[in-house]
Amino acid sequence: MNVKPNENVTLKEYLARQKTEVDGMLEALIPDETIYPPEIFRAVRYSLFAGGKRIRPILCLAAAEAVGGKPEPILPVACAIEMIHTYSLIHDDLPAMDNDDYRRGRLTSHKVFGEDLAILAGDALLTEAFQVMTRREVAAGLPPARLLQVVREIAEAAGWFGMVGGQVLDVQSEGQTVAPETLYAIHRMKTGAMILVSLRTGAILAGAAEEALAALSDYGRQIGLAFQIADDILNVEGDKALLGKGTGSDAARGKVTFPLLLGLEASRSRAEELVKGAIEALAPFDEKAEPLRWIARYILERKS
Amino acid sequence: MNVKPNENVTLKEYLARQKTEVDGMLEALIPDETIYPPEIFRAVRYSLFAGGKRIRPILCLAAAEAVGGKPEPILPVACAIEMIHTYSLIHDDLPAMDNDDYRRGRLTSHKVFGEDLAILAGDALLTEAFQVMTRREVAAGLPPARLLQVVREIAEAAGWFGMVGGQVLDVQSEGQTVAPETLYAIHRMKTGAMILVSLRTGAILAGAAEEALAALSDYGRQIGLAFQIADDILNVEGDKALLGKGTGSDAARGKVTFPLLLGLEASRSRAEELVKGAIEALAPFDEKAEPLRWIARYILERKS
Repeated sequence: MNVKPNENVTLKEYLARQKTEVDGMLEALIPDETIYPPEIFRAVRYSLFAGGKRIRPILCLAAAEAVGGKPEPILPVACAIEMIHTYSLIHDDLPAMDNDDYRRGRLTSHKVFGEDLAILAGDALLTEAFQVMTRREVAAGLPPARLLQVVREIAEAAGWFGMVGGQVLDVQSEGQTVAPETLYAIHRMKTGAMILVSLRTGAILAGAAEEALAALSDYGRQIGLAFQIADDILNVEGDKALLGKGTGSDAARGKVTFPLLLGLEASRSRAEELVKGAIEALAPFDEKAEPLRWIARYILERKS
Repeated sequence: MNVKPNENVTLKEYLARQKTEVDGMLEALIPDETIYPPEIFRAVRYSLFAGGKRIRPILCLAAAEAVGGKPEPILPVACAIEMIHTYSLIHDDLPAMDNDDYRRGRLTSHKVFGEDLAILAGDALLTEAFQVMTRREVAAGLPPARLLQVVREIAEAAGWFGMVGGQVLDVQSEGQTVAPETLYAIHRMKTGAMILVSLRTGAILAGAAEEALAALSDYGRQIGLAFQIADDILNVEGDKALLGKGTGSDAARGKVTFPLLLGLEASRSRAEELVKGAIEALAPFDEKAEPLRWIARYILERKS
C-alpha cells in the first residue's frame, strides 16, 4: 500500500505487495471453517484464495492513489470487488455454464464441493460483498453519499447491463456466428464493466474531481478491452502450465474471440493501441498514477 | 399504501392493495424484454411476476407505517427485498438443489429457460436488488446513514449467516436425522432472517426509535418462525391446487419438518403461541400497527 512509484520498485514487486495487502484484508474479512456452517466458508475460501492476481482491487487502490487518496479506508471495498469477481468465476465454471473442471490449475468449486455448494458459495460471495462494503467500520471512514454511489455503481457493473448481461450474451453465442459488435458488447459488459468500476470506486471514494474521474474511466474502458483481447490471445497461444487450463479451450468450445474475428496480428495491434490510449488518458496525472501506467503496459507483457 | 387500518378494510383487501402497490413499483423498476439482452429480462420477469404474495415488502411497508413513517420513499427498498426473495426461489429450485419442476403451479425457471439462464436470472435479481436500493431517486429521499445500515442488514440477512447459510444447512440435512436445534437454525437463517430484516428495513428507514425497532424485531422473529411452521403444516395437509406444488413433497424428499419433529398438534400449538407472542410484542403500538396484527393472525388461517 505504501509503495511509492518513484521508489524504484519494479512492477512485479508492486503487484506482489499490493496482492499481499488485498489477501491480508480478505483473510480478515472472511470467516474460516471454525465458524458455523463450516462448509460454506470452506467453499468460499477455496475459490477466493486460489492464487488470483487481484487485478481489480489493485486497480481500485491505484486509482485512489492517483488522485491523492489514502488506500487504507478503501481496501475493504476493493476486496468486495474481488469477492464479486470470484463469485462470477465459480458460477461461470458450473456444468450448466462453461462446464470447466479446472481453473488456475486446480479443480473448480463444483468438482470439489458439488454443484449445490458451488452455487451457494457464489451466491454468498456476491451477497457478502455488499455487507463488506457497508459494514460499520468501513462506512465510518468514508463519506456516506460517496459510499452509496459506489454501492450503486458496483451493483450496476455486476448486474444485467454489466457482468451478468455479458455472461447471458456469452452463453447464448457459443457455437454461433457472432458479429464484431456483439463480441465488443460481451466483453464490455462481461469483463469491462467490473474493471471500469474498480477504477471508479477508488477514484470516487478518494474524492476525485469530475475531470479526474472521467480520465480514469477512459483509462479503465481502454485497459478493460485490452485485457480481454490479451486474454483471448493467451488462450490461443499461452503456456498451459502458466494459465492453469488448456490453451485453445475457447476455440474447442466454439467461443468467438478477438483472434478469430480480427486475426492474431490485428488483435495484437488493437491491444497495443488501447494500452497506448489508456496511458494517454493519464496525461493529466503526475507520478502518483505511475502504477496505473505500469499495469497498462503489463497487459501486453503478461504470460498468464 | 394509503389504506388506514381503521377504515374498515378487510385483511384481504389490505393485502390486495399493498400487493398492487408492490407489483406496480416492481413493474416500473424491472426492464422488459424490449431491452437488450431480452432473455435475462424475460427470465427475471417470469419468476418475479409469478403470483407471489409479496409478504416481505408488505411487512416492510407495514413496519414503516407502524412507527408513523411514510411508505412511498421506502417502496423501492421493499421491492428490492422481494427481488432477493425471488432470486432465492429460482436458485433453490435448481436441479442441483431441490430439483423442483413446479412453483406456484407453473414450471420453474430452469424448466422454461434452461439451467444457465435460471442461474443468471437469480444472480441478476440479487445484484440488481442492491442497485434498486441505492439508485439516485431512492437515495435522494432517504437519510444516507440509514440507507447504508439497511443495505448492510439486508446483505447480512441474505448471506452466509442468513438465507444462504440456512440453505447450506438445508441441502446438507436432506435424508439426515436432524436435531431440533438444527431445524430451528435452518429456519431462523433460511426464512426468518429475511422476514426479520423486512420489518427492520421499514422501521429503520422510517426513523424508528430504539425501543420501537426492538419491539418490531421481536415481532419479526416470532412471525418468521410461525410462518415456517405454518408452511410445514400446509406442506403436510395443504390443498395441492392452492399451494401449486405437491403436498407432502417435503416428506417425500426426506426433509425434516416441524410436524415430523413435534407432531402436527404440537406444531399447531407452537405456531399459535408464536403468533400470540408477536401480537404482544406490538403492545406499545397504536392502531397504525393494526396491519401487522392482522398479518400475524393471517399466518394461522392461510390456506396457501
